[in-house]
Amino acid sequence: MRSVYLDYSATTPVKNQVLAEMLPYFNEKFGNPSSLYGLAFTSKDGITLARARVAHLIGALDTEVYFTSGGTEADNWAVIGAARAKKEKGNHIITSKIEHHALLHSCEFLEKEGFEVTYLDVDEKGAVSVADLEKAIRKETILVSIMLANNEVGTIQPIKEIAAITKARGILLHSDAVQALGNVPIDVNELGVDMLSLSSHKIYGPKGIGALYIRKGVMISNILFGGGQESKKRAGTENLPGIIGFGKAAELAEQNLAEHIETLTTLRNYFIGQIKEKIDGVTLNGDPDKRLPGNANLTFDYVEGEAVLLYLDIKGISISTGSACSSASFSPSHVLTAMGIPIEKVYSSLRFTIGDFTTKEDLDYVVETLVEVIAKYRALSPFGKENQMKSAQSCACQGYECTGCDCVKKG
Amino acid sequence: MRSVYLDYSATTPVKNQVLAEMLPYFNEKFGNPSSLYGLAFTSKDGITLARARVAHLIGALDTEVYFTSGGTEADNWAVIGAARAKKEKGNHIITSKIEHHALLHSCEFLEKEGFEVTYLDVDEKGAVSVADLEKAIRKETILVSIMLANNEVGTIQPIKEIAAITKARGILLHSDAVQALGNVPIDVNELGVDMLSLSSHKIYGPKGIGALYIRKGVMISNILFGGGQESKKRAGTENLPGIIGFGKAAELAEQNLAEHIETLTTLRNYFIGQIKEKIDGVTLNGDPDKRLPGNANLTFDYVEGEAVLLYLDIKGISISTGSACSSASFSPSHVLTAMGIPIEKVYSSLRFTIGDFTTKEDLDYVVETLVEVIAKYRALSPFGKENQMKSAQSCACQGYECTGCDCVKKG
Repeated sequence: MRSVYLDYSATTPVKNQVLAEMLPYFNEKFGNPSSLYGLAFTSKDGITLARARVAHLIGALDTEVYFTSGGTEADNWAVIGAARAKKEKGNHIITSKIEHHALLHSCEFLEKEGFEVTYLDVDEKGAVSVADLEKAIRKETILVSIMLANNEVGTIQPIKEIAAITKARGILLHSDAVQALGNVPIDVNELGVDMLSLSSHKIYGPKGIGALYIRKGVMISNILFGGGQESKKRAGTENLPGIIGFGKAAELAEQNLAEHIETLTTLRNYFIGQIKEKIDGVTLNGDPDKRLPGNANLTFDYVEGEAVLLYLDIKGISISTGSACSSASFSPSHVLTAMGIPIEKVYSSLRFTIGDFTTKEDLDYVVETLVEVIAKYRALSPFGKENQMKSAQSCACQGYECTGCDCVKKG
Repeated sequence: MRSVYLDYSATTPVKNQVLAEMLPYFNEKFGNPSSLYGLAFTSKDGITLARARVAHLIGALDTEVYFTSGGTEADNWAVIGAARAKKEKGNHIITSKIEHHALLHSCEFLEKEGFEVTYLDVDEKGAVSVADLEKAIRKETILVSIMLANNEVGTIQPIKEIAAITKARGILLHSDAVQALGNVPIDVNELGVDMLSLSSHKIYGPKGIGALYIRKGVMISNILFGGGQESKKRAGTENLPGIIGFGKAAELAEQNLAEHIETLTTLRNYFIGQIKEKIDGVTLNGDPDKRLPGNANLTFDYVEGEAVLLYLDIKGISISTGSACSSASFSPSHVLTAMGIPIEKVYSSLRFTIGDFTTKEDLDYVVETLVEVIAKYRALSPFGKENQMKSAQSCACQGYECTGCDCVKKG
């Protein structure tokens, strides 16, 4: 059976060149970078190169990149660190309803500490309104945090326009670029952000490593305390092989960026086109143009997304209903809900994310399997077009072991 | 030239069996553990096994082990998380002056947030007095945090005795076991701790991964917010290969523990014996018996420790003056200072830490080189015995390029 991975937004495999560069740092060049001998200097040199590569990918200075344990820590640090550092100036933060939970839950934590947070609505394409954002600014506003591209629907936000506003008012601007990195060209100076969250495992680097870009001159408080690593801003022995891998992945992402975007966009459009041609009652969620190249978030009317996901898994296809982080929870996607999508359509939505190892043949296989499963499940659904009112009984065996819902046939 | 690594307390190389087990998780079994398909379940299974292995090494339940980005995050989480969770009950914390900076700086952060912290003195062997600790307890005391073994001098603290006191008073007890793990037998129930910080890269596992043991029923606040990973206690996509590696390292540590302790203790005693026999004016810092098996922290009178360190590096030997985290700073060791060691002896101290790849021949080479360098530097020192009052000029070229201070001869 063919095995097709279409969940690149959840995580990516580590590329061979990346792993090859990491390997010596596990047991040969393993010195603690904070030590004072040759072996340690080799580690330090490796980190210096990796930092330069990550910085270069986003047009930053090397000294503006601070490694973290991942995108979540970067988001937490940006928002909590900025809030603590600026609390004398004000207590108001603006963000959006479709941010990653790492951002939203950090904001909720800050609310308990006395900060006020405005959660901006988004339009039906998942975009933040620059006018709404401007209106939400108060004299107490110290921070705006809007993601560069959404993880579920791929919508790219107008960060540059937002930066023009925050800059004029002396408000810090943070953007979660975890999904955007390596998928759209990023230049921190062109964007005008003060902070940018990055993650390695979304760009074919290892898990457990990320970074926060902090513009030179911007002072935020630390959130992890200890040794003087990362210019005394992020304590803890450096995740050396992780950093090396992130650096190599960043270099590869920069080298391949134009080709990667073109290939993925072509494949994605082909995929969406094929699905729309072969299956009716399908809607593309998010912005058709201002979206991540690999993202296809689709609503299949009258079927339950998770049931389809589990069926596809049996067929060797890996996809998700929304973000990986909330896959295991039963709450509906906060992103699709914020976009005004009705609850039954939210539960009928699936996220397919294409990456560097995806082929046209993979997509053809997924389309073919989708045609099969959607027809099957619609036939069983009490709301399915072909089967409307015919049966009130829907598939009961939606668990992982389900081999195609013949429980209905048997019953 | 022989290459001898004697800084195992700073970090350890990843063992081959550990790396071998990690490798498939970079690009084959790379699924995001939070996703809902087979590839993700494989990742989740890997984490489950790793968690069980780490738990088993410390006698904990699997569900009491939460993975973090390392020992620093574990220390931060334990102290800040416990303080936040218990703040209604009281605002007083007791720790010691010789804790790791991850602990001390977390306490300093909490002091700014209104908590009061007692930093206990230690005796000349680096041990906390249980009587002093008991006296320091107030009705507002919510947390005691004392490390299991010190990272600089290796002194093992009387945690079991401390636990008897904290338990009777309903005070939480945390212990930083980063250095003790894999070097002394640990059973959380026998010790009686409520929380225990662990790190992978000190036990031949990868850097960038650690864990916090939290006893069942103990509630502490989160410090990183986002997805629902680690039973909703520690957000962020799991560092999958890191966790797998930590698990395997924990398994190996448990299998080898008795042999490891015996071998290291024998080697260390041989090393200390040889040095004391061949070099005069040498003192062992810390407790001669209640100490980590691999630790030899020694003061060499009349020489500057860092100069010796750099000389040894040229001879292929990697050691440290104190903890790796503060190697790059010029401030004297807070541990040796707290033990009442005079400042000039603090600056004359070196930490040699022996590990699983150390051989007797390695140690003979280090002793031989030490004999050479100590004699050389003492001869140059204005305070050196053989050279007392002979020269007021000391070596000026203490940098990395120094090839033996013939700048003095030339001058």
